[in-house]
Amino acid sequence: MQIAILLFERFTALDAVGPYDVLSHLPGAEVVFVAEQPGPVVNEIGSLRLVAEAGLGDVLRPDLVVVPGGPGQNAHMDDGPVLEWLLAVDAHTTWTTSVCTGSLLLAAAGLLAGRRATTHWLAIEQLAPLGAHPVEDQRVVVDGKYVTAAGVSAGLDMALDLAGRIAGDPVAQAIQLGLEYDPRPPYQAGSPRTAPREIVDNLRSRRLTILT
Amino acid sequence: MQIAILLFERFTALDAVGPYDVLSHLPGAEVVFVAEQPGPVVNEIGSLRLVAEAGLGDVLRPDLVVVPGGPGQNAHMDDGPVLEWLLAVDAHTTWTTSVCTGSLLLAAAGLLAGRRATTHWLAIEQLAPLGAHPVEDQRVVVDGKYVTAAGVSAGLDMALDLAGRIAGDPVAQAIQLGLEYDPRPPYQAGSPRTAPREIVDNLRSRRLTILT
Repeated sequence: MQIAILLFERFTALDAVGPYDVLSHLPGAEVVFVAEQPGPVVNEIGSLRLVAEAGLGDVLRPDLVVVPGGPGQNAHMDDGPVLEWLLAVDAHTTWTTSVCTGSLLLAAAGLLAGRRATTHWLAIEQLAPLGAHPVEDQRVVVDGKYVTAAGVSAGLDMALDLAGRIAGDPVAQAIQLGLEYDPRPPYQAGSPRTAPREIVDNLRSRRLTILT
Repeated sequence: MQIAILLFERFTALDAVGPYDVLSHLPGAEVVFVAEQPGPVVNEIGSLRLVAEAGLGDVLRPDLVVVPGGPGQNAHMDDGPVLEWLLAVDAHTTWTTSVCTGSLLLAAAGLLAGRRATTHWLAIEQLAPLGAHPVEDQRVVVDGKYVTAAGVSAGLDMALDLAGRIAGDPVAQAIQLGLEYDPRPPYQAGSPRTAPREIVDNLRSRRLTILT
């Protein structure tokens, strides 16, 4: 099973590495990081570089695609090699998935038309104009073979969900135990429904800076 | 505030990237990945390479150090440049921290002598012989300036805890909301105390393969 994780400049590192460290433990999984050009790809902050081992043309038939988010997603929303690649590989995938604003790329490629999907809570309004049905109260949304996760850390929950669907519950549970994923956030601030109102309002007011 | 994240061959990617994507959002934070030699560093699985921008000799006075775990930690438990660097920079840090089996490196450097600490649940027996007091039932253990996290994903909880201590609760909460860290694991299998018995036993029986 080949798993392709897309990288692009100014991606969010955890969007890619969370699912990676789950899915790479699936039996028979071969994970490849892919970008327009092979080589180091810089993240949104500028201090992290993850190496893409393959260019888009080197990965033609992945079984599973993961599209991370990050402000760099905006540069690929119009026709171009990234959307072309997504369309082409999706014709053969078993699962086409995204984390955070990665779902906006899937939607821009036309892959989420009429489908239920999610994205980072700050970007949820951008799904409907791209033809998808936004779902606000789920961290992981499954519609057929399209699986979209909410912001950043939701990629971990999505990948474990996928691991169970692909390899069965015991395999997914063993991966979760290996990652000791028994989360205990020190605050109840991970969702706009639970975070203090002023924190939510502040992030909303900085929405454009965060997303672009 | 300079934050140095140590990389070594066969590290666990999420151990490093989880804390990175929290701490890099702290006001004034400058994060640098550091390894024995600058350049790409391969993870435990072999399909991920993260770039170390600096060599050990380039980072002499970080304010905060994060040591990830992964089976590659074993290669650095005896005297050598990694332990020497940890000892040298620890003399000046405000916080010296680890995720997963990274705490074994801190302990091997003598930094956890007589201190409470944790590590991946499969490695917890290795702390006492190195002079630390193992704590089994906490994801994040703070003893003075030494902060150790349990396995892999516990680095996220540790980094949010640290963010609050360093910059105050509202900053940490805003980071948590930005990462939409409102975890909903699909299984209750993230700890040996909650996972199905046969899954725990199976991982225990493969302990040496997983840890080395």
